[in-house]
Amino acid sequence: MPTYTAPLREYRFLLKDVLDYERYSNLPGFADAPMDLVDQVLEEGAKFCEGVLAPLNKVGDEHGCKRADNGDVTTPPGFKDAYKQLVDAGWPALSSDPTYGGQGMPHVVGLAWSEMVSSANMAFGMYPGLSHGAYEAIHRHGSDAQKQMYLPKLVTGEWTGTMNLTEPHCGTDLGMLRTKAIPQADGSYRITGQKIFISAGEHDLASNIIHLVIARIEGAPQGTKGISLFIVPKFLVNDDGSLGKRNGVVCGKIEEKMGIHGNSTCVLNYDDATGYLVGQENKGLAAMFVMMNVARLGVGLQGLSQSEVAYQNGVTYAKDRLQGRSITGAKNPNGPADPIIVHPDIRRMLMDAKAFNEAARAFAFWTSIYGDLLHASPDEAVRQKADDYMALMTPVIKSYLTDKGYANATNCQQIFGGHGYIEEQGMSQFVRDARIAMIYEGANGIQALDLVGRKLGANAGRAIFSFFNEIDEFVHANEDDADLKPFIEGLQSAKAQLQDGSAWLMQNGLQNFDNAGAASHDFLNLFGITALTYMWAKMAKAALVAKKNGAAADPYYDTKLTTGRYFLARILPDAAAHLTKLKSGAAPVMALTAEQF
Amino acid sequence: MPTYTAPLREYRFLLKDVLDYERYSNLPGFADAPMDLVDQVLEEGAKFCEGVLAPLNKVGDEHGCKRADNGDVTTPPGFKDAYKQLVDAGWPALSSDPTYGGQGMPHVVGLAWSEMVSSANMAFGMYPGLSHGAYEAIHRHGSDAQKQMYLPKLVTGEWTGTMNLTEPHCGTDLGMLRTKAIPQADGSYRITGQKIFISAGEHDLASNIIHLVIARIEGAPQGTKGISLFIVPKFLVNDDGSLGKRNGVVCGKIEEKMGIHGNSTCVLNYDDATGYLVGQENKGLAAMFVMMNVARLGVGLQGLSQSEVAYQNGVTYAKDRLQGRSITGAKNPNGPADPIIVHPDIRRMLMDAKAFNEAARAFAFWTSIYGDLLHASPDEAVRQKADDYMALMTPVIKSYLTDKGYANATNCQQIFGGHGYIEEQGMSQFVRDARIAMIYEGANGIQALDLVGRKLGANAGRAIFSFFNEIDEFVHANEDDADLKPFIEGLQSAKAQLQDGSAWLMQNGLQNFDNAGAASHDFLNLFGITALTYMWAKMAKAALVAKKNGAAADPYYDTKLTTGRYFLARILPDAAAHLTKLKSGAAPVMALTAEQF
Repeated sequence: MPTYTAPLREYRFLLKDVLDYERYSNLPGFADAPMDLVDQVLEEGAKFCEGVLAPLNKVGDEHGCKRADNGDVTTPPGFKDAYKQLVDAGWPALSSDPTYGGQGMPHVVGLAWSEMVSSANMAFGMYPGLSHGAYEAIHRHGSDAQKQMYLPKLVTGEWTGTMNLTEPHCGTDLGMLRTKAIPQADGSYRITGQKIFISAGEHDLASNIIHLVIARIEGAPQGTKGISLFIVPKFLVNDDGSLGKRNGVVCGKIEEKMGIHGNSTCVLNYDDATGYLVGQENKGLAAMFVMMNVARLGVGLQGLSQSEVAYQNGVTYAKDRLQGRSITGAKNPNGPADPIIVHPDIRRMLMDAKAFNEAARAFAFWTSIYGDLLHASPDEAVRQKADDYMALMTPVIKSYLTDKGYANATNCQQIFGGHGYIEEQGMSQFVRDARIAMIYEGANGIQALDLVGRKLGANAGRAIFSFFNEIDEFVHANEDDADLKPFIEGLQSAKAQLQDGSAWLMQNGLQNFDNAGAASHDFLNLFGITALTYMWAKMAKAALVAKKNGAAADPYYDTKLTTGRYFLARILPDAAAHLTKLKSGAAPVMALTAEQF
Repeated sequence: MPTYTAPLREYRFLLKDVLDYERYSNLPGFADAPMDLVDQVLEEGAKFCEGVLAPLNKVGDEHGCKRADNGDVTTPPGFKDAYKQLVDAGWPALSSDPTYGGQGMPHVVGLAWSEMVSSANMAFGMYPGLSHGAYEAIHRHGSDAQKQMYLPKLVTGEWTGTMNLTEPHCGTDLGMLRTKAIPQADGSYRITGQKIFISAGEHDLASNIIHLVIARIEGAPQGTKGISLFIVPKFLVNDDGSLGKRNGVVCGKIEEKMGIHGNSTCVLNYDDATGYLVGQENKGLAAMFVMMNVARLGVGLQGLSQSEVAYQNGVTYAKDRLQGRSITGAKNPNGPADPIIVHPDIRRMLMDAKAFNEAARAFAFWTSIYGDLLHASPDEAVRQKADDYMALMTPVIKSYLTDKGYANATNCQQIFGGHGYIEEQGMSQFVRDARIAMIYEGANGIQALDLVGRKLGANAGRAIFSFFNEIDEFVHANEDDADLKPFIEGLQSAKAQLQDGSAWLMQNGLQNFDNAGAASHDFLNLFGITALTYMWAKMAKAALVAKKNGAAADPYYDTKLTTGRYFLARILPDAAAHLTKLKSGAAPVMALTAEQF
């Protein structure tokens, strides 16, 4: 039975030592959440995730969700009670707007919480996760009346939310959608159509479900310019906030999936359901992307979360399992064999995960701080940089963290040998659950195209040049620090390669768009490696500072530095391969006709 | 519903054009199997795999195997009938010894057959696959009486076989095994103990199951020097060949696994079961490795087989699914969207699989020919080279082909977007089934250690130097061929890097064995890339020759050359990253204490 221990020390190190959380204490949100309160909140959160959610992870995988003939859905045993505890403890409100009952904590704190939830029980975490997306869309685009009606109960978690985009014939290409909205005299709309792959689409956890649905108003233009966003509550809500009649949306089927069995992935059939327009007619896709972008950071974290929990269980097994002897001589001579953690190739897989996890978490948290600054900073230049960074980093976090999360979960499963393939051990579930994160909220290939096609060139490359300048400044400020030297050199190398790749793209991607498409995956990976190298340089510096400031006896900081050096030696070298591949251009990829495949 | 089409054209190209199959027509086995007969056999095999086995693949995944309270096991619906057809058609006898009823065809033909079976239905293929392993062990190490008693019915497939190695506390480290064998007055032994992860361990397909079991004879030395190999039939066999009483071995449990649900992976409980010693006392591990080595090539093929079938279904989906428009302008302007095969990143995933599949198959077939020459060649030098190559290449084929097979299956699943995550589409099954091949028959990390620890240095490196010489000769013979130039340059680059890595290992691996262990994974991958680059050079040459010989109008050869150039541009660059990593040595991997993880 796998276990989970929340990485609280990592959160503290990142927030306090690396990201200097306390320097933002003058800003809204941060002002009311000093570091010691954040520590307490995360400690409480850790208890809940470790004690309540983690033990239900395997239960959810084994039982899945059951649909009754009338379309009602029952979640796995224990989920309902756990959800009640979640709501009672106020967790869904953590980083929501106090105007609607939220606690208003910085998003970066919410991100740490969501990593813990996802490591403990990814399928469960999607219920409140989707609600938060629905909250964001209504909060940003809804009318005051809609906010008053829906947000307070989404904030508490009494109601949950969903995102309804995909239809059987369209996912990535939402311009093809067929779901119809017919205007009614009272200002509402009648929504009819079928949506598929709707996570948390129907369940027994909450008294109402607020579906956010994209549909085409009758007579609207074809394509993406005719898409509008609607609120379609499972139960209509009366003006006094009480629940009214059941709306015309039912779960037609629960999909049989590779993983995340504890989450109900539904086919939802809308049949003259009552819906309410959110924002302007035909501007629904932009509004939906607000939810998508929030969700994409969260999905990146899901990748990390499975890598983290798989790593933890891999370490436990590698220390416990006695098998063979170290090739340099017995390390456990009184036992029947050595623990397999003595074997270099077992360590390679663990170190790959550890060196990734710590830097990936730093990257997500560092980006998330910009998400907070985007709203909280009084300085326009900071807000602009924050906006640029959020746009630029989001596809990288979504894609790089989920690809590597899956690879690491697979490696940690490998450590278990044959036992890893048996469902009883739980390692297979981490791999199967991690797999979806590479697909949903925009498949990773779409993220890569977003990066090279939209984000890289926006405002004449302002965002990436800003990132390069920031790295240069860091290098310049630290190049005389002998202890930091390998990290500075690694960072210079990574940055030079990313810059080279960017220049190649800017020159060749516009000449032939297929060059950009063919390079996108490798460019995104090169970007991810560079960002993580930068994070390692920042973490190494923070560790060295802590050691100088009297913490030299604490092995935590030496472990950190050693892990960072592993990254430089054994993960950074992939950057060069990605650069070579991306520069090979479109020709090798596009040369075959469709018939030649 | 996924489909499968056997790559018959690939087999013909490899055997006839690349490997010059016909030049061996003077040798036993080959003499009776001219190319046109091989073509016919493989065509018949293809019909069986496509028509009978492939439609049962998903059935097997969904139904799995069921164990009754008495330990009897029922295979998925349709498996029993398909197995009967398999036996009736004589397929299990394909490459077995004619002395015992086999057809005596070269192993390379058997390998092509086994790839088709595995692509069509990997879980099903394991039943005859394990039988063939049991056949090999008895054929090599059994007494004449044992051969007469067991081989004919293993050859026909009337009986099946198993390999019993793993116990709950030991897998890789078989020296720790506890299963006991007590000598009896009649020369037999009483076997008692528990074996786990026994593929095809109990089922309803055949009238008897011949278990090959390793156990320790009472009083034998501890460790690997006290392991003996036994035949333990499910039903004892009377002298006249009829079945006698039920032996003391029962299935205690069927494991719940991530995949290969159609194969019964059993816990087998031996309770005073009657067993018969195979070969000498305490020499059982060596005998078992005969089976293991045969099996390892087969497992490598399983990796390829899942990559191949996932690729085929990925291509079909990519041509059918309409979504979005080409970034260089609509390619299907009259349709609602373009087929997704127009998108470079979709092609990247398909080309990665295609460029791997074709070269991986060539590598396995090329090695397998040496497996035939090892026995069939009258020339001792050829037999020695064959023996060297089989030893050197086997861990590379097992490990590199299964790691990449899994990665490609995952990528082809990715092409399906959300639909790939739904079990109905069948892509998840390819990934889940492929996953086991990285684990069983020696986890891939063990293969890498076998390569650097045993195979590389054996006979002062004779095998790898022979491989380097062969590549040099190929380069020398073809360096003036302008059409082949990119392939020759790629091969020179790969070989130089592999040589560099080998030299590093020879210098540093002996000084500190942890250097060898830490480098093993990357060395094996570097070897795999080099071997596949060599195969591409050979295939490119064969394609150019065919074009010159009048086949220029056949697009097959241009497709081949284009696919090879993709390999050079986009897979070969990984070699450099592996070399850099392997040269970083043991320090980064070994620096942390166990407590620091």
